[in-house]
Amino acid sequence: MSKSFVLVINSGSSSLKFAVIDAATGDDVLTGLGECFGLPESRMSWKFNGEKTEIAIEGDDSHHKIAIGKLVGLTEELGFSNDIVAIGHRIVHGGEKFTKTVRITEEVTAEIEALSDLAPLHNPAGAIGIRAAMEAFPALPQFAVFDTAFHQTMPEKAFTGAISNELYTKYGIRRYGFHGTSHYYVSREAAKMLDKNIDEASFISVHLGNGASVCAIENGKSVDTSMGFTPLAGLMMGTRSGDLDPGVIEFLIKKGWTTEQVFDALNKKSGFLGVSGLTSDARGILDAMEEGHEGAKLAFEVFTYRVAKYIGSYMIPLSNLDAVIFTGGIGENSLPIRREILNNLKLLGFVEDEKGNESARFGDSGIIAKSEMLDAVAMVIPTNEEFVIAQQSVELL
Amino acid sequence: MSKSFVLVINSGSSSLKFAVIDAATGDDVLTGLGECFGLPESRMSWKFNGEKTEIAIEGDDSHHKIAIGKLVGLTEELGFSNDIVAIGHRIVHGGEKFTKTVRITEEVTAEIEALSDLAPLHNPAGAIGIRAAMEAFPALPQFAVFDTAFHQTMPEKAFTGAISNELYTKYGIRRYGFHGTSHYYVSREAAKMLDKNIDEASFISVHLGNGASVCAIENGKSVDTSMGFTPLAGLMMGTRSGDLDPGVIEFLIKKGWTTEQVFDALNKKSGFLGVSGLTSDARGILDAMEEGHEGAKLAFEVFTYRVAKYIGSYMIPLSNLDAVIFTGGIGENSLPIRREILNNLKLLGFVEDEKGNESARFGDSGIIAKSEMLDAVAMVIPTNEEFVIAQQSVELL
Repeated sequence: MSKSFVLVINSGSSSLKFAVIDAATGDDVLTGLGECFGLPESRMSWKFNGEKTEIAIEGDDSHHKIAIGKLVGLTEELGFSNDIVAIGHRIVHGGEKFTKTVRITEEVTAEIEALSDLAPLHNPAGAIGIRAAMEAFPALPQFAVFDTAFHQTMPEKAFTGAISNELYTKYGIRRYGFHGTSHYYVSREAAKMLDKNIDEASFISVHLGNGASVCAIENGKSVDTSMGFTPLAGLMMGTRSGDLDPGVIEFLIKKGWTTEQVFDALNKKSGFLGVSGLTSDARGILDAMEEGHEGAKLAFEVFTYRVAKYIGSYMIPLSNLDAVIFTGGIGENSLPIRREILNNLKLLGFVEDEKGNESARFGDSGIIAKSEMLDAVAMVIPTNEEFVIAQQSVELL
Repeated sequence: MSKSFVLVINSGSSSLKFAVIDAATGDDVLTGLGECFGLPESRMSWKFNGEKTEIAIEGDDSHHKIAIGKLVGLTEELGFSNDIVAIGHRIVHGGEKFTKTVRITEEVTAEIEALSDLAPLHNPAGAIGIRAAMEAFPALPQFAVFDTAFHQTMPEKAFTGAISNELYTKYGIRRYGFHGTSHYYVSREAAKMLDKNIDEASFISVHLGNGASVCAIENGKSVDTSMGFTPLAGLMMGTRSGDLDPGVIEFLIKKGWTTEQVFDALNKKSGFLGVSGLTSDARGILDAMEEGHEGAKLAFEVFTYRVAKYIGSYMIPLSNLDAVIFTGGIGENSLPIRREILNNLKLLGFVEDEKGNESARFGDSGIIAKSEMLDAVAMVIPTNEEFVIAQQSVELL
């Protein structure tokens, strides 16, 4: 039987993540990363059969184009170029235009570029990746999978900002949400594990990584999510503030800060890093806490408390709750963080299953708590966005 | 028996609200308002025994001083000047310095002025009112009651912003919360009505007026609240946005908006007014909804949904919930808004008591819903901040 491999491409402004995924199994055949594009140290590396290779990227042409061009020869050399049936691009912003994965045409690419106003760093890079891949692999059908698409089912009351309606009609300012592919994937996996029909299953999906967001999922559909117009909103993250009194920004500007300084601080010097004064990395926070670091302890407490408050607030859009799902690097692996979040959920009846919580780590799924009151569980599901991109690309073939 | 009346003063930048309150009963002996201070139409009016009087304020001296000076003659003329035993000032910001009501000394007044950085419109006006009242009523003891004081019991994890810790140590940026006097009052009244000891009673207090905030109260103490460093945070309000993705502000500034335009929009053109495109007044919103106005319907839905989400999130800091308390102009009177909020609380087990909800209006308290699941009720308690100011002033005498 012939294979259905998909080349998954995630194109950033100066980087390129790629993988070749078996759409049937989700296995990584090849994974790789191009980075420092445009700089002298520009390079790409990949892993195949456990072996890592790195090469320099040189030349005056676009480094995205050079790197994707190299994938043609590489996949031939490694012997699976004929198994690749499609290319799936991860695109950050689909605006209100894209509500699901679509086959890429010149019109779609232009639409993605036209949405650059909403994602000025990401969408132009996504379009560059698409054009380079079209040139390198002219025979392969290509698909765009959007971070925002899953959230396009949110009702108006959830996506509307409490601001002038003109800001929505004129600039498109509203909640879009991100991490949609992850929330989509783990909710489907959770429904399978709980033997529920996804169209009748409701979840609060908690994606905790360097970026973090929560999503309320009613009958399989996103009905609210914590990221907003931008990925700065919602939960506290590695270096991002998440939700913040807008009055703080006015105060800082009146103190003489420039807009650039304020948003640099909120995007790059807040979150775990800002509160702890130490590190943006959750593991570093936990290690420092054990050594008695006060800032790290506070960062841990603020983070877990805020995640729990979002879970509490997402009891509102749901008429039923089957499970709270933890995923993302922190959600899949950090026992102390999950434990503290569960401790915060006592009034919702959650009682930790300590053994379950201890064993659902490092790639393993599992039930980690139960609430008799809500007839719900909390569980861990490792996310796999590349698998979704591969699956949806093949489905649309 | 001699009376214990308190002159309650709420001094704004160009206005002065005042009342003479019977500290034993809470009855208004006299209520009044000075407004348009510094302008040609500057005036003050008062109501006594149901009769309203208005006079012009003229002169080069501070209009706050002139108005408060007139209260000396007025209270003598009305025959109760000897019953006034104290003056209580409502002061917006007590920072971390003032955790309860204090007797005013020169040092206290200077501290209030020193906190003007945190409340640039309100604290200087409060200090002007204090100095004028000291001069006009030199024999009366004076007290300062702070909007922020009740919330000073919040734990660090609730008051810490997910931003650089230096912003707290350098500028005092943290959650302070406001409406403390109202949340304090209604929680004490609710405990009495439910025959609970306040030190063992836990509430979610929902103050919905033109300004609006929610407070989680554990064993009688504030443990979290929705307003933040400024009163712009938290719930959607009459013209204020409440919580907002900070990225929206960066986007607007990049579009060429000035900081002044952005914060004018967020403070004065958002909330009910901004979403509806019609009015900041909740009654106007409800009327327009009945006539099929789409914007009004959306404003109603966004407002009620967001209030309900805050109630859900405040399940987290509490280990027990006795009641959700509605207060403030909207909370005390608007049946459709309360009903829609309760509809949103279904997963928390709340079922509306329709008759109770219909009758607890226009000054009447009452139980309006019950949650068997949480063993909690929802109730209405009309707030009375002046009464608290009068009571606390007399207690400290």
